[in-house]
Amino acid sequence: MASLSGLCSSFPSLKPNNRIGGELSPVRKDSLAVSTRSNSSFKHSVAREVSADLSKTNDVAGLKQAKQGGLEKDPKALWRRYVDWLYQHKELGLYLDVSRIGFSDEFVSEMEPRFQAAFKAMEELERGAIANPDEGRMVGHYWLRNAKLAPNPFLQVQIDKTLAAVCDFADAVISGKIKPPSPEGRFTQILSVGIGGSALGPQFVAEALAPDNPPLKIRFIDNTDPAGIDHQIAQLGPELASTLVVVISKSGGTPETRNGLLEVQKAFREAGLDFAKQGVAITQENSLLDNTARIEGWVARFPMFDWVGGRTSEMSAGVDIREMLVGASMMDEATRSTVLRKNPAALLALCWYWATDGIGSKDMVVLPYKDSLLLFSRYLQQLVMESLGKEFDLDGNRVNQGISVYGNKGSTDQHAYIQQLREGVHNFFVTFIEVLRDRPPGHDWELEPGVTCGDYLFGMLQGTRSALYANDRESITVTVQEVTPRSVGALIALYERAVGIYASLVNINAYHQPGVEAGKKAAGEVLALQKRVLAVLNEASCEDPAESLTLQEIADRCHAPDDIEMIYKIIEHMAANDRALIAEGDCGSPYSLKVFLGECNVDELYA
Amino acid sequence: MASLSGLCSSFPSLKPNNRIGGELSPVRKDSLAVSTRSNSSFKHSVAREVSADLSKTNDVAGLKQAKQGGLEKDPKALWRRYVDWLYQHKELGLYLDVSRIGFSDEFVSEMEPRFQAAFKAMEELERGAIANPDEGRMVGHYWLRNAKLAPNPFLQVQIDKTLAAVCDFADAVISGKIKPPSPEGRFTQILSVGIGGSALGPQFVAEALAPDNPPLKIRFIDNTDPAGIDHQIAQLGPELASTLVVVISKSGGTPETRNGLLEVQKAFREAGLDFAKQGVAITQENSLLDNTARIEGWVARFPMFDWVGGRTSEMSAGVDIREMLVGASMMDEATRSTVLRKNPAALLALCWYWATDGIGSKDMVVLPYKDSLLLFSRYLQQLVMESLGKEFDLDGNRVNQGISVYGNKGSTDQHAYIQQLREGVHNFFVTFIEVLRDRPPGHDWELEPGVTCGDYLFGMLQGTRSALYANDRESITVTVQEVTPRSVGALIALYERAVGIYASLVNINAYHQPGVEAGKKAAGEVLALQKRVLAVLNEASCEDPAESLTLQEIADRCHAPDDIEMIYKIIEHMAANDRALIAEGDCGSPYSLKVFLGECNVDELYA
Repeated sequence: MASLSGLCSSFPSLKPNNRIGGELSPVRKDSLAVSTRSNSSFKHSVAREVSADLSKTNDVAGLKQAKQGGLEKDPKALWRRYVDWLYQHKELGLYLDVSRIGFSDEFVSEMEPRFQAAFKAMEELERGAIANPDEGRMVGHYWLRNAKLAPNPFLQVQIDKTLAAVCDFADAVISGKIKPPSPEGRFTQILSVGIGGSALGPQFVAEALAPDNPPLKIRFIDNTDPAGIDHQIAQLGPELASTLVVVISKSGGTPETRNGLLEVQKAFREAGLDFAKQGVAITQENSLLDNTARIEGWVARFPMFDWVGGRTSEMSAGVDIREMLVGASMMDEATRSTVLRKNPAALLALCWYWATDGIGSKDMVVLPYKDSLLLFSRYLQQLVMESLGKEFDLDGNRVNQGISVYGNKGSTDQHAYIQQLREGVHNFFVTFIEVLRDRPPGHDWELEPGVTCGDYLFGMLQGTRSALYANDRESITVTVQEVTPRSVGALIALYERAVGIYASLVNINAYHQPGVEAGKKAAGEVLALQKRVLAVLNEASCEDPAESLTLQEIADRCHAPDDIEMIYKIIEHMAANDRALIAEGDCGSPYSLKVFLGECNVDELYA
Repeated sequence: MASLSGLCSSFPSLKPNNRIGGELSPVRKDSLAVSTRSNSSFKHSVAREVSADLSKTNDVAGLKQAKQGGLEKDPKALWRRYVDWLYQHKELGLYLDVSRIGFSDEFVSEMEPRFQAAFKAMEELERGAIANPDEGRMVGHYWLRNAKLAPNPFLQVQIDKTLAAVCDFADAVISGKIKPPSPEGRFTQILSVGIGGSALGPQFVAEALAPDNPPLKIRFIDNTDPAGIDHQIAQLGPELASTLVVVISKSGGTPETRNGLLEVQKAFREAGLDFAKQGVAITQENSLLDNTARIEGWVARFPMFDWVGGRTSEMSAGVDIREMLVGASMMDEATRSTVLRKNPAALLALCWYWATDGIGSKDMVVLPYKDSLLLFSRYLQQLVMESLGKEFDLDGNRVNQGISVYGNKGSTDQHAYIQQLREGVHNFFVTFIEVLRDRPPGHDWELEPGVTCGDYLFGMLQGTRSALYANDRESITVTVQEVTPRSVGALIALYERAVGIYASLVNINAYHQPGVEAGKKAAGEVLALQKRVLAVLNEASCEDPAESLTLQEIADRCHAPDDIEMIYKIIEHMAANDRALIAEGDCGSPYSLKVFLGECNVDELYA
């Protein structure tokens, strides 16, 4: 599993920089370095044309102005445009309609060379090019859907073996062959502990694909909120004894996930249960989490893997992971086409570029008209924003790129904000996700002659699409036959590739997230400051009589006079949790405050 | 209840136009008309300065440029700014920090007259001014939180009586005094059927305030998706027999809600249950829903009411509605202040105006750092976007106003899109919602010396706020002690008022939603066209031999040649659901299609 763990990623975001552990052979490195250079050189010619400065007229804006008349409104011309541009993937039963994005033929021609460059970049990426030159890492998630594409036979075997191991484990849990030590003798619940991609992926897949009454119910701890964790554990109640806890963390060091694990382990101890008998780790080999799980003898350990989300859900619900991979693989194949009109991911990227001027000037509103796809919008929010939200382009120019994504589901959201979309600030384009099959065959009925419940949903989608377009609001429609493991896999692969192509069009690196690290670092600094504050307060509280301090005094003694506001926030938070006491004053008047600890901790834990 | 039903609104959005049934006495109408005129005249002077054209320099942009140096970065000056502007509501334990929005003193002075005008407008609104001159309706939701403010004693009594009736009913359901006909003898589940405000309100309140193991569990049908409805009903299983179904629809005619009710009633019939013995209607008196419920003898009927969301949740979970109303009433009182710095709603509106240039030029990202407040962002999305997303201002100028709102929860969202917020396209400002109390007293513990799980959540919030500000990304922080019925009521009232004040600042009507109706109308047209298509197909299928038709033939026979694309979509949807058959061709090639019905329906139901 050693090398496989390197391939794996948290579920939804494009993070190949974390996928490769760094075990590349020198030969491989050399060949990759070459392809990277060619990669960056062909991108170079495109890069300078893109600007994130809204005041500058770039080529898209120019083409938009040149079009003048605005969006095509003649019904016959629009129908021709619809048929001309309609993309269909027959085997997947997937359609993509881009006719309600107003790009012109001139724009398409103008973009053609950029697309060819993007296709070339994606091809090199798939063959193992270094996506992130700073870190020397490559992208492996396409291989996971088709092990034959993996660069060597060893990896192919590892991919296949891991997939088989996951499926076997899931079967064994569901059948009761693998069971908890409790008398019930069967796992009844899954508690999935993870954050970010390690939570959204499983949540999305579970909600989209789980049957009505899955063999195991699934719950999520996806934050470091103590009350939220308590709530999940309290709802498990006595079933904690038959809960399989799946801890998902690539590095094994994500603080929220670590904290969730510690809290769950405490609950197990308090219930007199042996956590190791019910814990599963999904992480990179030799991570802290992996080592802990091995030493403590947890039920199972699996390497991080692109479809980890699906994996957790499969354990609980029998979701067919292989079918998801088939759907993704079929879509990967389709989106390798170098003919723009035949490549649905490229068509999406084209629309995004047109609609947002290639600089994120409009938001992407995602509206799946299907309850089970509610979380697809959040999933895309993460995928798109984390991958495209970048400060610098590949040539080091400050571009502040990105596309904002939001949405829940239709027609519910029509009652929430279609008012603004239709009439208000024009700062968005819409993506409708349409599911043609309303109900399993034989279960439909007519609420009134000729009209079913699903017809209303259909009518709301079509009516909204028309009404928006009539007001010059552009939209894309993605249509699938049904929500199945295969179509969900295909949708994910479609958007992953679209993000990759778009990143190439705007010349950014979709595969690193320096900004996330900055936030974590800042949080770490806050906690470090808190420890110093506690040490200072503790020392003062050990005086006889105990000394209470003003914020200024605390800041001075911490040698952090510039951090007085953060110290105030720390005090406010600790006071609200009975961990610091207000001797004088009130948090509403920070200058008035005098604070002490109430007890002197002589062993100076906080020092 | 007659007049009360007029006062009531669906939960979250500002919809007073639907709150008043039209039973105003002539005297009242006259006095209102006067106040409306004065209302619009003082607004007039402000209106022309606001423009939704991004290319024009308006006064905010001018002031921003004048400030030049950008955001204050000196720690000491920033700390002074923090303390100077910190708003505290002592009794509610609520703080508002606007120090990380970069407005200047000059901007505040410049805006002062507009705020005084807005305060006056809100005051007149509360006294019964006509919020929507087109429809002659007034705003009543403030009275509901303090019946003494209602314009006459009759209304006061009705408000108090209805509240008492709701609370008594909830108690009786929970205690088992009111029970289902099933042998279990006690309601165990609530199924809430409603959409928009009638769903989001109850969902938000249930998630924020429900205890770990509420006496009744609550589920929601909030869409017209047949699969989604089936899923909810399937999960109830045999407990359908002990499920209280609460149907919420102001007009009683919302299609999604009506469809949900019809589907649930069908499930009851199929299970051999009597729906009337388990149904509750919350709607305007004499609406279709109200009449149906009365005639069929449902368990209970209640008039629509501002806190209907809280009401449904109370039935299931014992949420203390009166406490929510107390919180809202206290916040209403605070936000009546005409001193900007002492009015937290006005401070919010000031920040929104500054951050979005008064034209929605930036998105509002809402990040509550507390799992139970996850839906607050969606709640605000509806409240803000539906109220502010308007095409015209009060003087009839096209302004295309609005502010886009999105967000889920922190720190989870940090792993989703902080990357873009920190480094990517700068098209947003953030609102952090901070909850000081991590856990109930006595339940906290330290994961490591001096640091709890909640400290990490705190650190993530503070770290993110700092990191964003360091990159010139502005933010607001709203802080509450705990998530309680009182603080939730206060938060809702705070944002309702802020929206009202902001609407006044930008001279729009927050109290109507013409765009929502347009979408519904368009959906109705789609369904009407579908009926014609079915009639045409039926006629052709009754030929001998049955005739299959091309799209063009169907369009021609429907006398709707311009609607051929919609006809195609209708056929595609019906074919996917086995209701139309493809004789030739494929949906991927619309011109190739030939379609028939497969059966001839001689009684011509579809005609």
